[in-house]
Amino acid sequence: MLMTFMPLEWTQFPLATVGEISESVVFSALLISATVIFLTSQIWAETCAWLRLPPVLGQLIGGLLLGVSALKILVFAEGDAAINPAVISLIQQTTEADAEIALTAYSHQLIAISEGAANLGVVALLFLIGLESDFESLLKVGPQAAIVATAGVVLPLVGGTVGLITLFGTPLLPAIFGGAALTATSIGITAKVLKDLGQLQSTEGQIIIGAAVLDDLLGILILALVVSLVKEGSINVAGLGWLLLSTAIFVGSVVLLRSPVAQAFTALNSWLRSENSLLISGIVFALMMAAIANALHLEAILGAFAAGIMLSGTAQRQQLLERFEPIAGILAPIFFIVVGAKTDLSVLNPANPDSATGLGMAACLIVIAVLGKGVASYLMPRAGELNRLAIGIGMVPRGEVGLVFVGIGSAIGMSEELTAAIILMVVVTTLVAPLLLRWTLPAANAPAPITQVPLSGN
Amino acid sequence: MLMTFMPLEWTQFPLATVGEISESVVFSALLISATVIFLTSQIWAETCAWLRLPPVLGQLIGGLLLGVSALKILVFAEGDAAINPAVISLIQQTTEADAEIALTAYSHQLIAISEGAANLGVVALLFLIGLESDFESLLKVGPQAAIVATAGVVLPLVGGTVGLITLFGTPLLPAIFGGAALTATSIGITAKVLKDLGQLQSTEGQIIIGAAVLDDLLGILILALVVSLVKEGSINVAGLGWLLLSTAIFVGSVVLLRSPVAQAFTALNSWLRSENSLLISGIVFALMMAAIANALHLEAILGAFAAGIMLSGTAQRQQLLERFEPIAGILAPIFFIVVGAKTDLSVLNPANPDSATGLGMAACLIVIAVLGKGVASYLMPRAGELNRLAIGIGMVPRGEVGLVFVGIGSAIGMSEELTAAIILMVVVTTLVAPLLLRWTLPAANAPAPITQVPLSGN
Repeated sequence: MLMTFMPLEWTQFPLATVGEISESVVFSALLISATVIFLTSQIWAETCAWLRLPPVLGQLIGGLLLGVSALKILVFAEGDAAINPAVISLIQQTTEADAEIALTAYSHQLIAISEGAANLGVVALLFLIGLESDFESLLKVGPQAAIVATAGVVLPLVGGTVGLITLFGTPLLPAIFGGAALTATSIGITAKVLKDLGQLQSTEGQIIIGAAVLDDLLGILILALVVSLVKEGSINVAGLGWLLLSTAIFVGSVVLLRSPVAQAFTALNSWLRSENSLLISGIVFALMMAAIANALHLEAILGAFAAGIMLSGTAQRQQLLERFEPIAGILAPIFFIVVGAKTDLSVLNPANPDSATGLGMAACLIVIAVLGKGVASYLMPRAGELNRLAIGIGMVPRGEVGLVFVGIGSAIGMSEELTAAIILMVVVTTLVAPLLLRWTLPAANAPAPITQVPLSGN
Repeated sequence: MLMTFMPLEWTQFPLATVGEISESVVFSALLISATVIFLTSQIWAETCAWLRLPPVLGQLIGGLLLGVSALKILVFAEGDAAINPAVISLIQQTTEADAEIALTAYSHQLIAISEGAANLGVVALLFLIGLESDFESLLKVGPQAAIVATAGVVLPLVGGTVGLITLFGTPLLPAIFGGAALTATSIGITAKVLKDLGQLQSTEGQIIIGAAVLDDLLGILILALVVSLVKEGSINVAGLGWLLLSTAIFVGSVVLLRSPVAQAFTALNSWLRSENSLLISGIVFALMMAAIANALHLEAILGAFAAGIMLSGTAQRQQLLERFEPIAGILAPIFFIVVGAKTDLSVLNPANPDSATGLGMAACLIVIAVLGKGVASYLMPRAGELNRLAIGIGMVPRGEVGLVFVGIGSAIGMSEELTAAIILMVVVTTLVAPLLLRWTLPAANAPAPITQVPLSGN
């Protein structure tokens, strides 16, 4: 999965000259935004728990309600005018600050949420999922995951490109771009749904995670390829070669170094004696691996996932899981709420004639997005009694991935219809996949052994 | 304790027009800043653990090293020119972003750290300390704590004012301001040190916490009084009356509603069934109480402490502690690192003749600050075998509290010497008190029963 959201327009943030802000205004903005996020997360997670749906679906819907499409409480990269004035007024009432200062303090918290907390949330989630993964099982399902991933990238790419050209007369390059936007699975959303269903350790779950990771690596390569094609009119062979090489080196290093790194971490932590040293050394390792992956032009969250995989071999894995789980448990929902809040549902409005072409294109892209991943799982050999449908559906959510393409595509002149269609495809696949997955892959009766923290009483 | 830092100068942050920032630059800035903070926290906590010193001291020193006084990696409210260019260059090298974009992305992370994470850290810390507190013991030591608090406010206020007038010829109003800056104890620092020493549940620990809370309430009233005196030349009786009334209502409500709120929370959480519902409902309650206290012009962290006190009566207290401890464990160090990073040690430079008067005033203020609190504990009746020296020293650290006065004082025209002297007094009392407390109040052999989480293996 590619983690880039739409590039933010800093110019629209009201961050220029505003004199001084007292700490009480900062606290007011902080406490209001944090309360709204956690309360929304809790209410929707609870609703989903009663309806036996994955909480992540509720967090996405909660985010949609808080975001640019509805209440406009969490508005990122949309300019001050778009923020719900009731929030600013509440900050003013509790602090007697003037409107400009209240707005600035609140905008700062929006930056902290979208750039700090949400990104740390997805890093924490992928680290936790890596930590919970069974490395041997992941290796065992490797070949099958590779087939699902490759077919699940090629089919939507070709299908999307051909579909856009034949049905809508889209020129070749934008059509390739649209097809490429269909390729990569949102590992964050899929993995969270699997975790909620207690299916992360099942063979199906392991294939989905393995394929989603490979799929993400393929997606990164395709993005580099398409961008160099669109921007330079030709493929930058040297750049792609470097990307391929660094990907291979990164993946190879993780596999080869897993065992020695785990041993070194175990030894380090039997020597460290400060409070929380296990937890913080784990976090530092995850952050450093994420930084390395990011610096190699891979994705930060792939690095965090790799860190989790590597530390899943330590003697302190169980303690690390127990300490880290509450942290991921409060950070990850922020990520999903932010994803929901950034999604602009106004492109969905069928009453608006401007969205007609976009809706047609979107319908086409959605069908290809779902079918492409669905068919991919049926190309897998020796699947025995595996639930192929569930594997296919597990690969469906595109999440933020498609939004990367939207961001880059807009920057290089993609049509508005295609942009809207890709956004709609992302919204539909992201919202529908958790529902379908819940239906094809019922919750395991007993929670997976590792995710069950004994002290958790609720 | 008053939580306001020096008001930040937004104008100096490079937050104006800079086009677009890709998510990879955001991640680079996020991962670099987070790694630096957690690694520093861990290294210093470990060093302190080996030297048998409280980790908070290490975090303050780590913050000093990262901050404006030394490495300039964490520079808040100082403008872009002050940020260590190596950080910006590292972001550029890992992302190929241009310098302006790298600087903007990093500045955004600095905002997220100082306004988001650090403030949530101190809220989390006080909530945890409230949750760990023994309400009955706190009530029992109430009268003694009240004497320590009142004497510990009056003595430094009078001593500081008289000292500044007689020794340095400071005019009356600034002298009162300087004296008032000596009044309130930094509850965050003191409580963390007590917790690290396993002394939070001892009678001495309970008296210190109780006195620090009362002291904070008195400090808030004195600040309001002094500001209205300095600004308007007279005391705003109506405003002070409202502040007194709201303080009384808030404290009274907490004491009266503790038991019914705890019962309601217990009932709610036996009904809620979503993942992490106990943890998140606790966090939402703490955030709401902090927001209420902030809106009443008390301190946000007093609200969080009150929330902890109230929830310490729930049936799920132990589970809540176990789930919440790792969260406070990673957030609170961020707060102490930020406090250290914001402290400008350049006012300490004895080689600079400009700091001579400031140093003299500072020496005077430090002596009065330490003696004032020290003597206060000896005024306590019926102390029996209590360690009066430890109680006095526990009240010494002024932490951020003095910085509030610096911020407000500068805004209303306090002299540069007095400003520097107050900063120096804050630095010395904050750094020295943990050391002295460690010496007068040796670590309990067995950690306090509540703070010891059984699953914590490190």
